[in-house]
Amino acid sequence: MSVDVASLVDQGRLWDRHMRMAVHGATAAGGVNRQALSAEDIAAQKTLIAWGEALGLVAATDPAGNLYLRLVGTDSDAAPVMTGSHLDSQPSGGKFDGVYGVLAGLEALEAIRAAGIAPRRSIELVAWMNEEGSRFAPGMMGSSVFAGAVPLAAILPVRDAAGVAVGQALAQVRAALPLPSWPLQRPVHAYVEAHIEQGPLLERDGYTIGVVTGIQGKRTFSVTVTGEEAHAGTTPRRERKDALVAAVRMVQALNAAFADPEDLIKFTVGRFDVRPNAPSVIPSLVRFSVDLRHPDSAVLRALGDQVVHICGAECGPCKVEVVELSTAMALSFPEPMRALIRNQARLLRISATDILSSAGHDARYLHPICHTGMIFVPCRAGISHNEAESAEPGHLADGTRVLVRTLVELAGDGAR
Amino acid sequence: MSVDVASLVDQGRLWDRHMRMAVHGATAAGGVNRQALSAEDIAAQKTLIAWGEALGLVAATDPAGNLYLRLVGTDSDAAPVMTGSHLDSQPSGGKFDGVYGVLAGLEALEAIRAAGIAPRRSIELVAWMNEEGSRFAPGMMGSSVFAGAVPLAAILPVRDAAGVAVGQALAQVRAALPLPSWPLQRPVHAYVEAHIEQGPLLERDGYTIGVVTGIQGKRTFSVTVTGEEAHAGTTPRRERKDALVAAVRMVQALNAAFADPEDLIKFTVGRFDVRPNAPSVIPSLVRFSVDLRHPDSAVLRALGDQVVHICGAECGPCKVEVVELSTAMALSFPEPMRALIRNQARLLRISATDILSSAGHDARYLHPICHTGMIFVPCRAGISHNEAESAEPGHLADGTRVLVRTLVELAGDGAR
Repeated sequence: MSVDVASLVDQGRLWDRHMRMAVHGATAAGGVNRQALSAEDIAAQKTLIAWGEALGLVAATDPAGNLYLRLVGTDSDAAPVMTGSHLDSQPSGGKFDGVYGVLAGLEALEAIRAAGIAPRRSIELVAWMNEEGSRFAPGMMGSSVFAGAVPLAAILPVRDAAGVAVGQALAQVRAALPLPSWPLQRPVHAYVEAHIEQGPLLERDGYTIGVVTGIQGKRTFSVTVTGEEAHAGTTPRRERKDALVAAVRMVQALNAAFADPEDLIKFTVGRFDVRPNAPSVIPSLVRFSVDLRHPDSAVLRALGDQVVHICGAECGPCKVEVVELSTAMALSFPEPMRALIRNQARLLRISATDILSSAGHDARYLHPICHTGMIFVPCRAGISHNEAESAEPGHLADGTRVLVRTLVELAGDGAR
Repeated sequence: MSVDVASLVDQGRLWDRHMRMAVHGATAAGGVNRQALSAEDIAAQKTLIAWGEALGLVAATDPAGNLYLRLVGTDSDAAPVMTGSHLDSQPSGGKFDGVYGVLAGLEALEAIRAAGIAPRRSIELVAWMNEEGSRFAPGMMGSSVFAGAVPLAAILPVRDAAGVAVGQALAQVRAALPLPSWPLQRPVHAYVEAHIEQGPLLERDGYTIGVVTGIQGKRTFSVTVTGEEAHAGTTPRRERKDALVAAVRMVQALNAAFADPEDLIKFTVGRFDVRPNAPSVIPSLVRFSVDLRHPDSAVLRALGDQVVHICGAECGPCKVEVVELSTAMALSFPEPMRALIRNQARLLRISATDILSSAGHDARYLHPICHTGMIFVPCRAGISHNEAESAEPGHLADGTRVLVRTLVELAGDGAR
């Protein structure tokens, strides 16, 4: 590279933008509640568009509500290189999960501009719609629809707890942020996503960069237990169809079945809703989520297949229905992409190691359609999906330095 | 009795009023959602006031939001006889729980008027505020404050799930229904409450009237389990502080400890709230309710004392706090009141049997301050706190016939 573009990454500006983005949905405990397509999400998108347009980037959206900011390349026929992540958060999330990949991408484009580089391929910053899946399930909606893995028609009717459908919420976003709409399933040359690790390994082992080798597999389920509503004071227990008692038994049995001395199986019940949820009424319905992950696809397949059997065995006088919401087998990013990232870190003398992603990311859906890779940076104590989530400004900047060089390599030199 | 007042009870009118009252908060499944101090509750009170005023009854309220309709007796110095129950329902309740006691009381007053009876004591129909306790916990708020068992100041700051306090909601009711306010803790001569059984015994054994001998004891608790929010995909299970896993273990252990082959122990977890309640976030907090009942006060005391120990033993890496919300030991209604009720049923040739109330009622709080009794009628299949709740028109009318004679006896003859 003729100009050292990585040296133009501005650590202070990058940190400052994280703090300014965290205002949208800020919680009293210092975290962020900025769920997909909410007013807070719209405000965050507006801020990002303003920053991008100040750099001369072209803003656009698509029918799935993904947000693009394009640095136009010299070859308008060449498929673009994409980078980014997501702006939405968990209900009590932090300032870095998702936002870092978006702001690192913006900082990379600013450095490229400042270096006077004219890339051959366009480089697009993307903020994918609803990665978290907490308001509308499942997550990674925007990237899965963009990549053609999920049809647009499948996400539009999905409703949040208040009964608002994705389609309605998207219309609100479009009304608030009128932008040209680009088609879904456009050709993409490559996708690189920067992200905080969301685990403790990089910090513990003293590395700044994690070259992500792949993503562990994940299967998610919704379990609905139906009993019969009755009076807590009068109904003899042997005559009850108590949906909560049955659901509690199922969660216990799943927890026991998925015990793992090696701690490779990740099993979580994060959501548990009770109806009518009144102290003196025997619950008639419980719906709970199952989140099951494993780095080995064959093991994950076998474990996931047990869910329906275990729940069925523990339902007693109630009825149970198990629906699989999402299935994502383990995947490996291509070695050439990993080598490219590893090499940039080496040239910049930033410490790097290979690492498996335990969390799912939008990169999962880009992987089947283009050259895809991910760059991790440490987060404090591995804490994520938590208002206490934190990261070092220097690590965020180093990750961006590796990212910008990787993007420039992938986009090619338009001046040649 | 010179006039057979019981013969003036009109079964059709009584049934019709139940159906008209059920319009307020009607649910699609044929039940009622009319929680305390809601718009639906205000509409129901308005309807009752209109019916009462058409009979010449005097409407009033008190600082706790109880609603009174007084038939004025000839001796204005004599403490009144009260009858009634409540108009609020569970979130998915039925058409009869509470409402029956109010409408049976109204029908009794209408029959007394029609018979030309001038009672010595005033007879007051009362609709107690928030018996159910589903919107604002705990229940029996109005009667407990009226009787002086709970100070008014203790209920006013209690908030519902939306953050609305009882005090604010009461102000809305007062604005919608301006009525004179009568003092709390007024002297009461006697209180008789009619109610559906909410259990299967009368129907099963073929009795129309249950002469209620007493109310089983009840202790309620709120259990709060605090863990640590973390990412479901990245956090090793041995490092987790999963509040849901701990709470599920507690509910299982409580359920096992309170197993009872005789089915006298009633143990229910009806409410279970999870934070942040997102599928891919390890829960940081679970709060669940414990409702524990037993006909023997000594047994109930011993069982309830175990709750804190069992929860503490099962909390693992989480923290647990157990708060007792309400304590109501078993009680027996006075034998003379039971004999009076039993005698009216005998004179009317309506079958009657003694029965223990498994559910709590406002009568619990009147019992310490005046002569108190209760009259039960069957409900279909013992189903209650359920939209399918149902009762026979003939049974409702027979209960009202016993009630009206009982009230006339208690109020005395003003013409004498």
